Amino acid sequence: MGTTEAWKKMREVCVLGVGLHKFGRFPDESIGDLGREAILAAFADAGCGPKDIQAAFGGRVFTPNTTAMRLVNEVFQTGILIDNVEKACATSSTAVRLATWAIGAGLYDVCLCVGVEKMERGLVGGVPAGAESRASYGQLMGLGIMPAEYALRARRHMYEYGSTREMFAQVAVKSHKNGALNPYAQYQTPVTLEEVLNARMIADPLTLYQCSPSTDGATAVVLCAREVAHKFTGRPITIAGWASGTPAYSASGVSGDVQEGYIERIAREAYERASVGPSDIQVAQVHDAFSAGEIFAIEDLGFAKPGEGGRFVWEGKADINGKVAINTDGGLESRGHPQGATGIAMLAEIVRQLRGEAGLRQVPGNPKVGLQHNVGVGGCNIFIYKK
Amino acid sequence: MGTTEAWKKMREVCVLGVGLHKFGRFPDESIGDLGREAILAAFADAGCGPKDIQAAFGGRVFTPNTTAMRLVNEVFQTGILIDNVEKACATSSTAVRLATWAIGAGLYDVCLCVGVEKMERGLVGGVPAGAESRASYGQLMGLGIMPAEYALRARRHMYEYGSTREMFAQVAVKSHKNGALNPYAQYQTPVTLEEVLNARMIADPLTLYQCSPSTDGATAVVLCAREVAHKFTGRPITIAGWASGTPAYSASGVSGDVQEGYIERIAREAYERASVGPSDIQVAQVHDAFSAGEIFAIEDLGFAKPGEGGRFVWEGKADINGKVAINTDGGLESRGHPQGATGIAMLAEIVRQLRGEAGLRQVPGNPKVGLQHNVGVGGCNIFIYKK
Repeated sequence: MGTTEAWKKMREVCVLGVGLHKFGRFPDESIGDLGREAILAAFADAGCGPKDIQAAFGGRVFTPNTTAMRLVNEVFQTGILIDNVEKACATSSTAVRLATWAIGAGLYDVCLCVGVEKMERGLVGGVPAGAESRASYGQLMGLGIMPAEYALRARRHMYEYGSTREMFAQVAVKSHKNGALNPYAQYQTPVTLEEVLNARMIADPLTLYQCSPSTDGATAVVLCAREVAHKFTGRPITIAGWASGTPAYSASGVSGDVQEGYIERIAREAYERASVGPSDIQVAQVHDAFSAGEIFAIEDLGFAKPGEGGRFVWEGKADINGKVAINTDGGLESRGHPQGATGIAMLAEIVRQLRGEAGLRQVPGNPKVGLQHNVGVGGCNIFIYKK
Repeated sequence: MGTTEAWKKMREVCVLGVGLHKFGRFPDESIGDLGREAILAAFADAGCGPKDIQAAFGGRVFTPNTTAMRLVNEVFQTGILIDNVEKACATSSTAVRLATWAIGAGLYDVCLCVGVEKMERGLVGGVPAGAESRASYGQLMGLGIMPAEYALRARRHMYEYGSTREMFAQVAVKSHKNGALNPYAQYQTPVTLEEVLNARMIADPLTLYQCSPSTDGATAVVLCAREVAHKFTGRPITIAGWASGTPAYSASGVSGDVQEGYIERIAREAYERASVGPSDIQVAQVHDAFSAGEIFAIEDLGFAKPGEGGRFVWEGKADINGKVAINTDGGLESRGHPQGATGIAMLAEIVRQLRGEAGLRQVPGNPKVGLQHNVGVGGCNIFIYKK
């Protein structure tokens, strides 16, 4: 029996409630302060409380040690199983996947997941945290520096398909336009195409506005078995499918964020498990750590053919009222990217959209199917949600 | 439906093969070098190879970032899901639990778990890694320093039950005697009771030999669904039960290693899930980060009544030919305690014992049921294994 068949035999799992601490810079708040606010917000949204939670999962990328336990214990201490996971930028979506497995298998009815980060200012990258001190050949050549990796693939994309600087820049214009409608976003100011193009160059063709910032923030979600959701007041959204995999990291020195080829395979598995295809997706949260990433994702996920992702964005097809509304909350670039918290932030936005609760940034037409694409050096998690 | 009922409906999961890199000090070997040797040894023991592995889980405590992926990718790169977990001293047993869930639920047939650590010299403790810079009141009073925490509970045990210094020291005598029979142990030299008692005092009543050392090492295990085990040459040992939980960390400032009361509850759950009781356990690996920990565990796990753990060891009941053979491989004190690798080392020793492959330290009488107790500041994992 394959994984997809096993998944389809598991109990239906749904998102019951989501909660965020605003993203931004909070030097006076501790990790515990950030996490507490997110957890309490998720409880309020789910209509549940500490006594309902049977297990918890979560994490942080920078100094992850027993983070989930520390965050949960800030709010309640009931002795439940609390597992700490770390998967670089895909950390909190990994926590969600593990909770989904546990609930789907019947081990628990209601679980809490939480992600948090406080980030130092400046570039993330170089020899990855925790790696051996000896750098790989790729790293010595400048790979492993995130903007450089994205920029390299972007340059190749321009050469191969004729994508333009303007197309990559347009991603940032769209993201900041959406982020301006999101009160939880780190940056809530729209920018023009000219401003994006003329901003400080980080890694050609990516300028400052096309790079996700360093961010503090926290996110939490309550998941439950569909069969117990009626006990709570939260408005459940079903986790219809998921898939996960890793890139061939060591050999190439190129991290999982930008490696070609492997995301398509994982997306196919997720679509199969959810019994949908790319054309069914109405809202998507994709991993735009750098603007080019959104264009790669549009192609990798099958929203556009290879080479046509840039045009897809340029023509407005990724806008809130476009063909697939992408990164409606501002994405990593405008909403912010507190690495351990990002995965659940993506989930939260899709839940808000599918519930019709996204306010000024609500996707029209009562969307029913959403997709989340969360990648990092630790691999990729894709989730598909259904109303 | 409770967790125990759900667990009993899941597929039977077994350990197919185990592998270790020797524990000790290996300044010239990288994390990848250590992990590679353990993974290849586990493959050889299981009679399987990279193409059989459908998902992997693992971790490291110090700079855990994407460790499992890095270790696995040293050996093979097939794009599988690889999750990184961290649960302080219970890290790799957490990886095993997650793999057990995934296999039990039918998502995967064969999974690899791996744990690794390279530790700095010196005391582990103080304000825990990754904690906020503001120390809790407990930490400021000296709690959070591991030997001090164990020593405090040991002193209370002496006051409350009349346990003696000699009883705590006897744990170290037994551990080092067993470790001398284990070619993978960090320390393979027996010590006398007098040597233990006269060694440098670390935290009264715990002397140097009663404290686990800083250790480098790696461990790996291949798990599979019992129904596919026949495809491989490994000799499967069943994971009959598990349970996990957290202590009330924040409130008391006392870490999960020594908090009273919560381990008994978790042990009860594990016994229930495995349909056995304390009197069925013939071999056990318990978390003797400090000698007193073994005595607490003996009581918490129900091998002896509260207060009688010291006498249990003193009377030889925890010896290899005793009532419950405990820490037959030398335990954390003599085998060593590379934190991220320890959980799977415990598993590996029980598997060796139940298979009858433990050589000079083999428990007589063909033992059929073993227990693993792996605790840390991140909580406790208990597993019960059956031949």
